[in-house]
Amino acid sequence: MYEDRIRCAALRGKITSAAAAAQLVRDGMIVGASGFTRAGDAKAVPLEIARRAREENEPLRITLMTGASLGHDTDRLLTEAGALARRLPFQVDATLRRAINRGDVMFVDQHLSETVELLRANRLGKLDLAIIEAAAITETGGIVPTTSVGNSASFAILAERVIVEINLAQPAALEGLHDIWIPERRPQRDPLPIVEPHDRIGAAAIEIPIEKIAAIVITNTPDSASTVLPADHDTALIAGHLIEFFQHEVSRGRLPKQLPPLQAGIGTIANAVLSGFAASPFEALTIYSEVLQDSTFDLLDSGKATFASGASITLSAQRQEKVFSEIERYRDRLVLRPQEVSNHPEVIRRLGLIAINTALEADIYGNVNSTHVGGTHMMNGIGGSGDFARNAAYAVFATKSVAKDGRISSIVPMVPHCDHNEHDVDIVVTERGLANLTGLAPRERAMSVIQNCAHPLYRDLLRDYYRDAAALGGHTPHRLDQAFSFHTRFAATGSMLP
Amino acid sequence: MYEDRIRCAALRGKITSAAAAAQLVRDGMIVGASGFTRAGDAKAVPLEIARRAREENEPLRITLMTGASLGHDTDRLLTEAGALARRLPFQVDATLRRAINRGDVMFVDQHLSETVELLRANRLGKLDLAIIEAAAITETGGIVPTTSVGNSASFAILAERVIVEINLAQPAALEGLHDIWIPERRPQRDPLPIVEPHDRIGAAAIEIPIEKIAAIVITNTPDSASTVLPADHDTALIAGHLIEFFQHEVSRGRLPKQLPPLQAGIGTIANAVLSGFAASPFEALTIYSEVLQDSTFDLLDSGKATFASGASITLSAQRQEKVFSEIERYRDRLVLRPQEVSNHPEVIRRLGLIAINTALEADIYGNVNSTHVGGTHMMNGIGGSGDFARNAAYAVFATKSVAKDGRISSIVPMVPHCDHNEHDVDIVVTERGLANLTGLAPRERAMSVIQNCAHPLYRDLLRDYYRDAAALGGHTPHRLDQAFSFHTRFAATGSMLP
Repeated sequence: MYEDRIRCAALRGKITSAAAAAQLVRDGMIVGASGFTRAGDAKAVPLEIARRAREENEPLRITLMTGASLGHDTDRLLTEAGALARRLPFQVDATLRRAINRGDVMFVDQHLSETVELLRANRLGKLDLAIIEAAAITETGGIVPTTSVGNSASFAILAERVIVEINLAQPAALEGLHDIWIPERRPQRDPLPIVEPHDRIGAAAIEIPIEKIAAIVITNTPDSASTVLPADHDTALIAGHLIEFFQHEVSRGRLPKQLPPLQAGIGTIANAVLSGFAASPFEALTIYSEVLQDSTFDLLDSGKATFASGASITLSAQRQEKVFSEIERYRDRLVLRPQEVSNHPEVIRRLGLIAINTALEADIYGNVNSTHVGGTHMMNGIGGSGDFARNAAYAVFATKSVAKDGRISSIVPMVPHCDHNEHDVDIVVTERGLANLTGLAPRERAMSVIQNCAHPLYRDLLRDYYRDAAALGGHTPHRLDQAFSFHTRFAATGSMLP
Repeated sequence: MYEDRIRCAALRGKITSAAAAAQLVRDGMIVGASGFTRAGDAKAVPLEIARRAREENEPLRITLMTGASLGHDTDRLLTEAGALARRLPFQVDATLRRAINRGDVMFVDQHLSETVELLRANRLGKLDLAIIEAAAITETGGIVPTTSVGNSASFAILAERVIVEINLAQPAALEGLHDIWIPERRPQRDPLPIVEPHDRIGAAAIEIPIEKIAAIVITNTPDSASTVLPADHDTALIAGHLIEFFQHEVSRGRLPKQLPPLQAGIGTIANAVLSGFAASPFEALTIYSEVLQDSTFDLLDSGKATFASGASITLSAQRQEKVFSEIERYRDRLVLRPQEVSNHPEVIRRLGLIAINTALEADIYGNVNSTHVGGTHMMNGIGGSGDFARNAAYAVFATKSVAKDGRISSIVPMVPHCDHNEHDVDIVVTERGLANLTGLAPRERAMSVIQNCAHPLYRDLLRDYYRDAAALGGHTPHRLDQAFSFHTRFAATGSMLP
């Protein structure tokens, strides 16, 4: 059985149930699981860990590391079972989020490129176990990932033992799509040799000593579909502002006609903005990103984009069916890499990316909060936005100018949590317009952000704040006693408007 | 005359006075001048620009870009003359600082690795003129820098016209110390091939078409001496905590015995900490930094360090005399690079640096303010600290726990300006102790920073703040109405203590 999926005959004897495999987990262990933005997550064993934690009398609390977020309510079920002591580097689950914000789960919000770098250097403890979803195991025991690579390769390499979940619902034809390359442990490290998005530098499977594979579990469940919303009027306006801006940059000789490779962050706004490039005059676009969402396939299908490199493929339900039934069509135009490579500062700086990520809110000086509602409550995590924004040629942060029917302004006097500071933010864009902050001093930035990006409901309030602050002087004028007035007013009245 | 210093005979006819050369400057021009932390700055022509601005009736206001800070009161004199419309990317002058904080000079506080990247892409306007101090001009017209490379090479390459200041006070023996390598304009760019601090990848001089050299001015003035203070009891304690910590990391197999290359930021504390390594058990240290201060030569002289790579050499007056009179002794152990290379994310990540920079203040979650006094008033600028902290293996921020006899705490509830956020800060260290924040959640970070780094005078205040904030919940607990209470109290009473 499973000869095509487990081609290394010696390993077929390792097939067992998810419940039996989950017995390998002990209280206090550090576990690395595959999964990046719902794609290619381990779907069976983590749920059995949750069941054990719920049903057994002994405590079972683990540190769980992943690529990014998981599907299938795995984080919810583990949280409800009390099985998570510590979680990193990203999540999007409402139940887990509440546990994090209560202080019940220690969440380490990390740049996605850094987790395995720290792990490799023994700085996050010893990885006891890796649980990796695979499309197949090769003749030599190589693990072929499914719809994400994420941190799977380094988890498998660094873990003491590995559980493989062979998912029959994932097309066997995914094999060959991956490019597994892992940097040497420092200090002896060579350059990362990617100079164009389509460069392949590694292997098609994750090679580890086969004796480390402790169990193989067979599953048959598709990835959870993405939850991004379709483009709307506002996101179309945001895309339009960006396309106009980049046309201007091309006309001024600042960018080549086909633009540098594009990165777009997780979520509705970045996805919609990228889709907007389908109606742009640009041709021969390339994508060097982390998650490949529906928008990437819009661009590939329309011929606007010639190639896409990512760490995962996360699609809506209809798109999933369509893409995976004709994956051959994309074989020469796609590559999936470890997130350490997709998000690597070296490659991002070298390629000169245009990086488009979503802001929760931005302040008048261009500092961006991506993570903390009200400055205190974790939403999802910084994800890859910091990896990209810091080293990209153009770091763009997009947001709608208001939320909750105008009761929240996404442009505020000062962000109460700073994930991306003024030094790293080149462009702020809302449906109202675009502020190009490159080479501007803070006082100039404030004028541009208020004028171009703020909603008219809030423009005068922001101008008043800035004027009063500037009267006190300073390179970056603020009134510390009023800097969070929008946020404290919202907390008191349910609206940032007076 | 000057046959040894101007070996390209065709250029000797370009020798003129500083006053005549300064006539090349027009109102509104963008000028790039050599100079990095007082080293290798253009010493004559900028002062003549200031004189013209002061004495002539016509307006003369320019954008001035440099490597980093200048010596010889150049920024003061240009500011007093009203000659600066815009200044980037760094400065340390008290008069200029006041003008920046009044909003009279637009200051663009930039990561030091990014200025010429933006300039090369036409995103900061067209560079009209470069003014570059040189030790010599070679047979082919190549410009040999002096005690800094900084941004000089790219300025000379990108500017329409170039003025060279041949400084006879700089030893001719500096020739051969520099390694001039400039990345291609994107998108066609190869890896930056440095894999060890001592790798030489470029040329000994800046090669430009000789017809671009519009004037040569002869000067004879040494660099301004550095102003760093000697190590004291507190900085020795800080160094001690760091050395103990890194010994621990070695013992846990996280670092090799000789440590990765060290970077230390500008200023007294970082310099003193680096000097402290002279008394450490570590051997065969290497430096991959931007400014090489007295401390670097302490380590080279004592045999503790085997090699130092930087963008400039900035020394105290005594040390200047000693080092430059015996520069031959250091020839094989020193290299000076463009700051784009010394501070390049690609190299910093590859080498896995230990980056030690100075914080103005840090908050309980490990966010760092490096630049803005009271959150509003510019001190110097972010300099290279962001280039290094983001991509280093160990990003260390050091500060004394209190300033002004205890009236200011350097550990605060929330920083009112964030240059380095929690994602990028691994270690906070004061004379009180060291907080290793790697892999910790914010609530754990707060405990560690308060316990290990805060001064006893402020510990209970910080604990009270954290306790009250944590009662409100959140991943990163804060009370927005109290977050700046330390700062507003200081503004009102002259002390952060109640």
